[in-house]
Amino acid sequence: MNVRPIIWRDSQLFIIDQTMLPAEYREIPLDCVAAVWEAMRALRVRGAPALGVCAAFGLLVALQERAPKSVRDALNAVDEAANYLATARPTAVNLFWALERMQSFAHANAEAASAGELFERLEREACAIRDEDTACCKKIGAFGAELLSEGSGVLTHCNAGALATSAYGTALAVMYAAHEQGKTFHVYADETRPLLQGARLTAWELMQAGIEVTVICDNTAAQVMREGRVQLVITGADRIAANGDTANKIGTYALAVLARAHEIPFYVAAPLSTFDTALAHGGEIPIEQRPDEEITEGFGERTVPDGVRAYNPAFDVTPAHLVAGFITERGILRPPYDAAIAACFGPNTVAK
Amino acid sequence: MNVRPIIWRDSQLFIIDQTMLPAEYREIPLDCVAAVWEAMRALRVRGAPALGVCAAFGLLVALQERAPKSVRDALNAVDEAANYLATARPTAVNLFWALERMQSFAHANAEAASAGELFERLEREACAIRDEDTACCKKIGAFGAELLSEGSGVLTHCNAGALATSAYGTALAVMYAAHEQGKTFHVYADETRPLLQGARLTAWELMQAGIEVTVICDNTAAQVMREGRVQLVITGADRIAANGDTANKIGTYALAVLARAHEIPFYVAAPLSTFDTALAHGGEIPIEQRPDEEITEGFGERTVPDGVRAYNPAFDVTPAHLVAGFITERGILRPPYDAAIAACFGPNTVAK
Repeated sequence: MNVRPIIWRDSQLFIIDQTMLPAEYREIPLDCVAAVWEAMRALRVRGAPALGVCAAFGLLVALQERAPKSVRDALNAVDEAANYLATARPTAVNLFWALERMQSFAHANAEAASAGELFERLEREACAIRDEDTACCKKIGAFGAELLSEGSGVLTHCNAGALATSAYGTALAVMYAAHEQGKTFHVYADETRPLLQGARLTAWELMQAGIEVTVICDNTAAQVMREGRVQLVITGADRIAANGDTANKIGTYALAVLARAHEIPFYVAAPLSTFDTALAHGGEIPIEQRPDEEITEGFGERTVPDGVRAYNPAFDVTPAHLVAGFITERGILRPPYDAAIAACFGPNTVAK
Repeated sequence: MNVRPIIWRDSQLFIIDQTMLPAEYREIPLDCVAAVWEAMRALRVRGAPALGVCAAFGLLVALQERAPKSVRDALNAVDEAANYLATARPTAVNLFWALERMQSFAHANAEAASAGELFERLEREACAIRDEDTACCKKIGAFGAELLSEGSGVLTHCNAGALATSAYGTALAVMYAAHEQGKTFHVYADETRPLLQGARLTAWELMQAGIEVTVICDNTAAQVMREGRVQLVITGADRIAANGDTANKIGTYALAVLARAHEIPFYVAAPLSTFDTALAHGGEIPIEQRPDEEITEGFGERTVPDGVRAYNPAFDVTPAHLVAGFITERGILRPPYDAAIAACFGPNTVAK
């Protein structure tokens, strides 16, 4: 799986426009900070780790756009752009995490000789964020692969693959690693309404990797479980609170409840950058509400009568007690999660 | 709610083409038995009770098409058409129930003086099937309305409304009756992938009736329950076994499990013509598999990569133990269902 959704090439930012897949593979340039914001808001680039990586490079685009004359100007530009890009999406914490890391790094490098030198240092930092994410994804895959038994079925929701990260993925990294180990298994991909990231993106990635995948409507997951086709459920995450409560794509909570009812383990795969230990529990995670039209006219024609509203939360929160484990770059975290998560972030868990 | 999806007008059969809703309300004639079959297979007319009513009138269309010279010819035409129409859809038992009732009636009237007289008698029988269904729906509404509390939220799946019956509906009949009693409540309608009968048909019906409705993606039902927005779940049914196991639109089983997990009562509304006491349990109910394309290219463009398969069972089976009650024209049946159902069908429950 060599797909990389965010491309920093010759100091220019490109992304795969994920709204065009699977019909068309198109790399588009993001040459101003407004374009970076729009690409995130419109889900041309999506997935919590990918949003972090994209935002980090987005600050470089902001600097290119501003062409600051001094280090002070550059720092102002970074701060302004970070504040702006942080408004693109509210739920995935990696976005804020990456922006804060870049801002802190910039201010810690205020002694740079010139705006140009600061840019070069920030460029190395953004690349480090990207490369660390890739390394995390590889480790998540390696740790998680042991969960996947030969000949088993695994169900996933939305897209937590290469397209959702810098490369390789989180939930799908587990499948790529198991596949590389020679295991055979079958993936059931929830199509994931309203925007069909499962049907469009997960199926596309898995097919490219040569992994068998069947797309189902979200409402069919319970039946697939009941028929004994699934022995494992793995999803990604957009934000995980200190107690393990997990925000992820709408429908994840339903899957977790259904998996419990069928005695199928439900795992969440995510790097530590997706954990937000400043939040005690999932009730504190802000949930993005998306426009009705994603549901009512998602397929080019109106499928809901004019005048009827839709309710379109982009995420839900799965309570920690439904999660069998968190597959991270440090290994698989097991309950009790408050202690397991705290241990990953050192003795002082409140200040992350 | 005055919508009638099956119209027998001047001895001609028309249906509302439900594949066109909500964009367009169009009545189309079904002037040959092949057109009746196609309308059922293509879901232009759908819903278990409606399929029964449509098939009954379909036998009249078959007689008109054949123009039999004798009563014997007419009986042969009825038998042939019944065998043919029974192949249109496999799961909804009302289809077979209505065809068998019409066939039995026809053979019991073999002494008719002419094919024309037999046709007239069969026409009265088909109208009786339709009118009895309407009366059942009204009673279902009256019995069920007590379950709906003032100010509550009710969730439904697919379309079990006027469009799914001769008039008024089953699950939606409960809402229409409560609305007529002056109760205010809010309906959450699962959009119901792949063919969006909830978004297209249920929302359309409820809007016409002046009942507040919000459309949600199927994967959002659990979240809506968790948020406390729903106090009751009601669906229709396509076939109910002697023990209460219930086949209904794919996704119903998931709702029943989720309702149980949230301690929300899950009711099934259906006339006795939907019960199949010849089947001991739900495992014996045949489940229709529909084409992949309903999922992969349901809206004019392909949303799943070429070469990736889908799994598209049209129905699932909800085990009886998840059902709080069956709302029928005889009242609300409560557990133990084998006894309650048997009591509705007399002492000999095997021969329905």
